Order: sequence, then structure tokens, then C-alpha cells
Amino acid sequence: MKAAEYLRAGELVYREITDSHPGPGEVKIAVAWCGICGTDLHIFQGHMDQRLSPPQSIGHEMSGWIAEIGADVTGWQVGDAVTVRPLENCGKCPTCQAGWTHICENLHFLGIETPGAFAEYWTVPASLLHRLPAGMAMEVAALVEPLAVACHDVRLADIQEKDFVVVFGGGPIGILIALAARKAGGKVTVVEIQPARRAFAQELGFSVLDPQNEDAVAAVRDATGGSGADIFFEVSASQAGAAAMTAMTRPRGKILVVGIFSHPVSVDLHKFFWKELQVRGARVYEKEDFDKAIALAAGGELPLSRLITKTWPLAEIQEAFRYLQNGNDAMKVLIRCQEGGVK
Amino acid sequence: MKAAEYLRAGELVYREITDSHPGPGEVKIAVAWCGICGTDLHIFQGHMDQRLSPPQSIGHEMSGWIAEIGADVTGWQVGDAVTVRPLENCGKCPTCQAGWTHICENLHFLGIETPGAFAEYWTVPASLLHRLPAGMAMEVAALVEPLAVACHDVRLADIQEKDFVVVFGGGPIGILIALAARKAGGKVTVVEIQPARRAFAQELGFSVLDPQNEDAVAAVRDATGGSGADIFFEVSASQAGAAAMTAMTRPRGKILVVGIFSHPVSVDLHKFFWKELQVRGARVYEKEDFDKAIALAAGGELPLSRLITKTWPLAEIQEAFRYLQNGNDAMKVLIRCQEGGVK
Repeated sequence: MKAAEYLRAGELVYREITDSHPGPGEVKIAVAWCGICGTDLHIFQGHMDQRLSPPQSIGHEMSGWIAEIGADVTGWQVGDAVTVRPLENCGKCPTCQAGWTHICENLHFLGIETPGAFAEYWTVPASLLHRLPAGMAMEVAALVEPLAVACHDVRLADIQEKDFVVVFGGGPIGILIALAARKAGGKVTVVEIQPARRAFAQELGFSVLDPQNEDAVAAVRDATGGSGADIFFEVSASQAGAAAMTAMTRPRGKILVVGIFSHPVSVDLHKFFWKELQVRGARVYEKEDFDKAIALAAGGELPLSRLITKTWPLAEIQEAFRYLQNGNDAMKVLIRCQEGGVK
Repeated sequence: MKAAEYLRAGELVYREITDSHPGPGEVKIAVAWCGICGTDLHIFQGHMDQRLSPPQSIGHEMSGWIAEIGADVTGWQVGDAVTVRPLENCGKCPTCQAGWTHICENLHFLGIETPGAFAEYWTVPASLLHRLPAGMAMEVAALVEPLAVACHDVRLADIQEKDFVVVFGGGPIGILIALAARKAGGKVTVVEIQPARRAFAQELGFSVLDPQNEDAVAAVRDATGGSGADIFFEVSASQAGAAAMTAMTRPRGKILVVGIFSHPVSVDLHKFFWKELQVRGARVYEKEDFDKAIALAAGGELPLSRLITKTWPLAEIQEAFRYLQNGNDAMKVLIRCQEGGVK
């Protein structure tokens, strides 16, 4: 089969690789679409070599149809439309034992620690399948995985009706959080430095702030009667976001740390104390977040298809990665992994 | 009456000041004992001049007896033994309206924004009184206020039976947190750089770690089967504490930020994300924490009197402050504000 294999920084090669049959408990999926995640871009840039085993295919934001079913798999049929929750946990560590399998201390992320979905076929444990409802567009279904991230973040934030919500960082995950937070009842402001991303957030109906050219802290204060935001999602992984989170959030407000910081930053812990802030890290998703994301996508109320900026066929995947590297305006870029339907 | 008035950095003067009668809604208390808080020491060192109006008496960790009752006060009698929850909130800000009056956006702290209890008499709103049970030693009752801080911190941590608890910083508040956390079911380790404080914690039955001369992160990891502490109290307000809190706490573990950081520090927010840490700032106390502290102190199970390192009469208060400034070994120092009982 054809697949895109990561070799080394900057090299992602479309080529023929060995195909195989699914083993016991596995299914082989004909991949329809696979989105490029920020993590895939990091891999492409060579920042995550310690987690990969090149040459290796990558990718995990996918939709597809079951093409072949391994032994001991029940409840699925060839042709079923599915997406995959790409987390394999050990089941043995204290964190798994406590029920938080999504942050297992020995977690394998499919498409990072194992081969990924930028390929004609992807073989995965059947236990990680999620069924797609009839009629869901397969392009939109490829957004279920990042939308599940947003659903997880929003669930942990426990948003109440009319909560003033700040999303600091208006990239794909930030916009998905903004959409899920609004659906949960929040009044959402997106803080974003890129004009094109601000414009997009505005088109989607969100208030926007430009932290480089206006006093965003004062703006949030004024908009909240002086107290600050009820909920703050840090999605920028920037020093500016770390500073804004303590400045913009009201006493006893909630901060969700979603952005993936590459190094420690300066944080005003005095404000944690003074305002009794509640801070939670939020990583990937649990099963119920995937279910919620599928339900939201199926409901059709979120303008998910508008997030798909551009698509490329698998053969041209390297061009797609180069485009994303150079173009900050893009939201999601999808790769078409099949020429037609199920083969 | 006699009182100790703060004039400027390093100057706390014992002298005669004007006495007055309590106004409507107020009571005048004959102060028995008043402890020196870390905050009082900061005031003495001139670090908090912007919040005071010198010359001004300070102090708030007190016990005493009601000496005079103002108009419109019911439920109290002259001679009643009391302590005071020294927080005056505005009642109008959104934080008060939400019920978090202890972190009111316009909070007045008695003994900081208003005159304090290093005096023969202290006049306060009757609404802030807490009754002391019959038979409670008045010295121990002067520890109720700092113990209420510990009760607040421990309550917000929601400790479960057998939780592995790290208290980073073994000063008076750290030790009170350790005692309250153990009472709540936790297995407590105190991390402290001062040998004398470590020795004291050990005498009280706590495990101790010296973060400067042993690998405290590895020690906690080994003691918890590799995962880390369930609960971490940051009480040191140090860069070392900020680093340890993310390193020592298990996935989904809880960090309480109790220490008062004077400036932003470097924090590994990636670990917030990766381990989905739950972080809460914890400041002062709510009414129920004071009630809990009084009940704990009355129960007699906590070795509170052992925390009283030394006492001085009010006339020698400056010597007590100088002692504390120079002696890191001390836990609580109390000032005797009356020669006898109620006058």
C-alpha cells in the first residue's frame, strides 16, 4: 500500500510500504481523510525524533471505513464508517488503575509511538474504534479527534451558562475550544495575534482581541464588570499566554492549560494564591469526549467544515506540510488517503 | 491603653495610645495573647507600607475576652472568651456576591488595613467573633487563626485516607498544614531546608526530606511506587518549591499554592498539561475553616502548644520581632498583651 513515511526532519516520503493483515483484536481501516495536527508538524520539523522509529508513517486525525477484521473482533463489519481514538494505555500503571487511561504513564500514541494514518490503510486495535453516524461527511469526521480535545478541555472547565470565556490562542484547537465552549453556554472571546486568525474567529461570531495592539487585560476587565474571565483556556503555549492567564481570570476563576509549552515560563504564582485560581492541565481526551465530539459533529450545529482550509492527496503530502509550515493563516489541512471509497 | 505601633521599617514602638469605646455592632476585646505572623514580620521589615497607615498597631493571631459591647450587638457577654476572624469584606463586589467573601476584591485585613491586636484592647466588628470553648488554653487559642489557614488549605485539597502528602516548607504554616493533613488521613512528608525545622517536624512524627542534600523528587517517587505525591502543598514561596510541585506530584495530583510569592517564578507548565495536574491557590480561610480550627484545637489531639517557641510581654515586642528576624528555628512566638485576666 501507499503511505507517507517520516524519515528525518523535513522529509516525509510518499511510497509503497508493506501491507499486512490485522492480527487478533485488530481491524484494518481504509483511511478516507487524515488531518495534519500541530504534533505532526512538530514531528516533520524533527522535534520529536525520540518518540518515533523512522522510517515510520505518522498521522492520527482520521476517518475511514473498516476494510478487514482480525480474529476475536466482534461488533464490527467491513464497510463500517469509523474514526479512532489513538491512545493505547498499559492498564497497569497507577494512573490507569485510577481510571485515567488517557494519561497512562506508559501511553502509546498511535501515529507517534506506532505507525500512523497517512496511508491507504491503518491497522489498529478494535477497542479504539468509534462508529460514525450515517450521513456524516468523512471530511468532517476527520475533525472528530481534535474536536474531542476541545470537548475534553471544555468538560474539565465545567462551563456554566453565560460564563465569560477567554480562549488565548486562535489556532485550530483554540477555535474548536471556542466553538465547544459557546455550545456549552459560554460567551467566548478569542485572543490571537494573527490578523487572519482573528478575522476567522470573528466570522464565526466570536469577540476577538489583539494582545499586541490593545490592552487585552483591560478589555476583559471592562467586559466583566472589573472581575475578569470566569474561564481561561491557555492554548498559545507562550509567555504572553502564561502572563495573561493570571491577569485576566477572576477570583476563583478556572484556567485550563491546554497549550504544549516547550520550556518553563515565568508564572505569577502570587495571583494563584491571591485570587484562589483553579488551574487544570488538560491533555487529549477520554472516551466520553470522543462520543461527545461525534455527537456534536453529527448534530451539524458547529461550522466544522469551515475549518477545513485546504486538502491534498496523499501523494502530495509533503507539499501540504510545507504549506502549513509557511502559512499561519491555515486552520485544518486534510490529506485524502483513498482515491475512491473502500477498496 | 498600651499598644505596639508600627512607625516605619524596623520600628515597632510600645506606647500609650488613645483608647475608645466600641461603636454600634462592635465589641472591645481584652487581648490575651497575640502571635507574630510571617505577615507581621514583613510589615516590620517595611515591605507592606502601601497597605498600612502608620503609626498603626498591627497583629491579628489573637485570643481574648470581651471587655465591652457596643450598641446593636446581641449574643455576646462581657467575659466571653473569643478569637477573631480578621477579614472585613465589602459585600458588594462580584466575588463577595458569589459567596467568596474571604477573597473579597476590596478586602480589609484587620491588623493590616486597620489597627491590630498587639495592644491591651482590640475593637472589632462583632460579626467576626468566634467563641472559644470552655477550658481552651488562651495561648493555644492564639494559634486558631494560623490553624484556620491550614484547615482551609487542607479542605481545598480534599485529602483522601492514605493520600501521600508533601508539604514543601516546614515553617509554622507548613507544620500546621502537616498536622491538619495527617488528621484528615494523609501520610505526610515535610520537605524543609532548615535542619532545626526538619528535626521539629520529625519529632512530631512526620517523614522529612532535605531538598538540598538529597534527591527529594526521587525519594517521593520511590515512596509512591513511581507515580508521585497525591497532594502537594507549596508553602515555601521559593523557586525550588515551584519546581518541586510539578516534579513531585502524580498524574491528576493536586497542588495547593499557599506560599506568598513576591515575584513571578519559572514554572513547568508542560507538566501541568502532561500530568493533568490540578492546582489551586489557597488564601486565608472561610468561616467554616475557623470553626474547624477551633474544634481541632479544642479536641486536643494536635500538639499545638509545642509550636509555641517563646513568649514575650507586649512591652518587649520589639525584642520578639528581632528574635524572629534572626532565628529561623522558631515556630510561633506569642506576645502577652494583658498582665492578668479581664480588666
